Amino acid sequence: MATVVTDPVPGAFGARMVAAVARTGPLCVGIDPSPQLLADWGLPDSAEGLATFAGRCVEALAGVVPVVKPQVAFFERHGAAGIAVLERLLADAADAGLLVIADAKRGDVGSTSAAYADAWLGEGSPLAADAVTAHPYLGLGALAPMVEMARRNGRGLLVVARSSNPEGQSVQAAAAAGGRAVGDLVLEGVAALNREEGLAVGAVGAVVGATLAGRPADGAEPAPTAFSQVGGVLLAPGLGAQGATPADVGALFAGCAPGTVLPSASRSVLGAGPAVDALRRAAALVRDELSAVLA
Amino acid sequence: MATVVTDPVPGAFGARMVAAVARTGPLCVGIDPSPQLLADWGLPDSAEGLATFAGRCVEALAGVVPVVKPQVAFFERHGAAGIAVLERLLADAADAGLLVIADAKRGDVGSTSAAYADAWLGEGSPLAADAVTAHPYLGLGALAPMVEMARRNGRGLLVVARSSNPEGQSVQAAAAAGGRAVGDLVLEGVAALNREEGLAVGAVGAVVGATLAGRPADGAEPAPTAFSQVGGVLLAPGLGAQGATPADVGALFAGCAPGTVLPSASRSVLGAGPAVDALRRAAALVRDELSAVLA
Repeated sequence: MATVVTDPVPGAFGARMVAAVARTGPLCVGIDPSPQLLADWGLPDSAEGLATFAGRCVEALAGVVPVVKPQVAFFERHGAAGIAVLERLLADAADAGLLVIADAKRGDVGSTSAAYADAWLGEGSPLAADAVTAHPYLGLGALAPMVEMARRNGRGLLVVARSSNPEGQSVQAAAAAGGRAVGDLVLEGVAALNREEGLAVGAVGAVVGATLAGRPADGAEPAPTAFSQVGGVLLAPGLGAQGATPADVGALFAGCAPGTVLPSASRSVLGAGPAVDALRRAAALVRDELSAVLA
Repeated sequence: MATVVTDPVPGAFGARMVAAVARTGPLCVGIDPSPQLLADWGLPDSAEGLATFAGRCVEALAGVVPVVKPQVAFFERHGAAGIAVLERLLADAADAGLLVIADAKRGDVGSTSAAYADAWLGEGSPLAADAVTAHPYLGLGALAPMVEMARRNGRGLLVVARSSNPEGQSVQAAAAAGGRAVGDLVLEGVAALNREEGLAVGAVGAVVGATLAGRPADGAEPAPTAFSQVGGVLLAPGLGAQGATPADVGALFAGCAPGTVLPSASRSVLGAGPAVDALRRAAALVRDELSAVLA
């Protein structure tokens, strides 16, 4: 289907992520070239500015963190030219030994879901990443083609269960079948998919806001132990600028298997740029704080 | 932010859509260049194949239907080259007098939501469409930057409330605050946004599966009258290949203002291709059936 051929990815996503975290430490850095950050770095708000931004991130972060998470919206702002920069970022990160989670929050039904699987998880796709984020508003079952392709190609699918923003509660804390919160139902569905696959760390993971720890318990919050039963990678955005601390993360994910919890920070690391050395130091600092609280 | 400058869109989205439906009739044709349809049309599964497919759709549908709905996933499968085809489709459709709803189902929080607004609803963006679809898994409130930009630029935001697939019920029928189903809460939120805007047909609409009519009532389904209170455009996928009939649509949306209900068909029209005349006839047939049942 595509003209760019990527090398097949060896090994399952979960095992690759655990190994990468063991090498460096547990931190995912979001690559979020917002208009504000581009300006702060003295870069134009253009595809060229994006390319410079992304290149510096890869240079600074390779060997320092296991994984980067480009936020696709900031590339999409520049249309096809921005997506071409994302393609290059995916290739450059792979060459530099960085795993990549494409933060796209895609999701649809039937053949459309299969098309998103092709785009983000398909062999030979110019946008193939190690994992992609998805939203389950159309039901976790609607994402089946993405689950299947992730498993087949050693890639990952990270489904948003509980987001880091308060407005998310209106949907995610609603009472689904059996009285469980929608967010918990999604986590349970992910756990079931991983039990079915039977790997130590399955192809399907969840996105769970790290800011959950900072909010008062309301009875609908999942108990922390539930996270250790998901059987997949847990991506936890919200660290730093969004308010969660490493201590929050340690408490929220106590008991989870080593290498399966990936707190994600963006502005709190990227704000140290544009100098590559400063970015590297900022990332290492946050990573080391997290290493101290995550097993 | 972008190098391509699109003309400012005159008038509000709702008024433009109502006028367009009045000219031709109520049908949105989905442009879904899936691998299967490309093969059926004798086209390669490549950006070149996509471009030919999209060009034939615009040629066939201009003047026959008010609006087309490219499914972004099928363009994303081909990476930046596919997105470049989508940019051209957006420009060609505008030149041909067709409105375009980008079916992207985007959604995120904060500055990311603002970036999606820039991409799909921003003046000067190469991907700016008349409207874009969004998902509210992170809460309708998280989409505020998209709502604001739609209003400011005379474009539309169509939020998925009730999808056309059965798996969607696990989330959309869950009991949100006040005991209402999540899908109903979203519809009410959209209605509140439109009351606040104060136009006859507001910038925010909803996606409501036309297949709802074909399913047994389960007590959590919104009463048909609720649709007439949304105050925005209602996009209703699921016609044809997914099982809903024009009669279902007429019953489901009884009482809605003329021009605000947009049933969407894809395979049942596109399957008549690749000949432009056959596509045109197929679209006109479905459109006329819908004209007979929608006020």
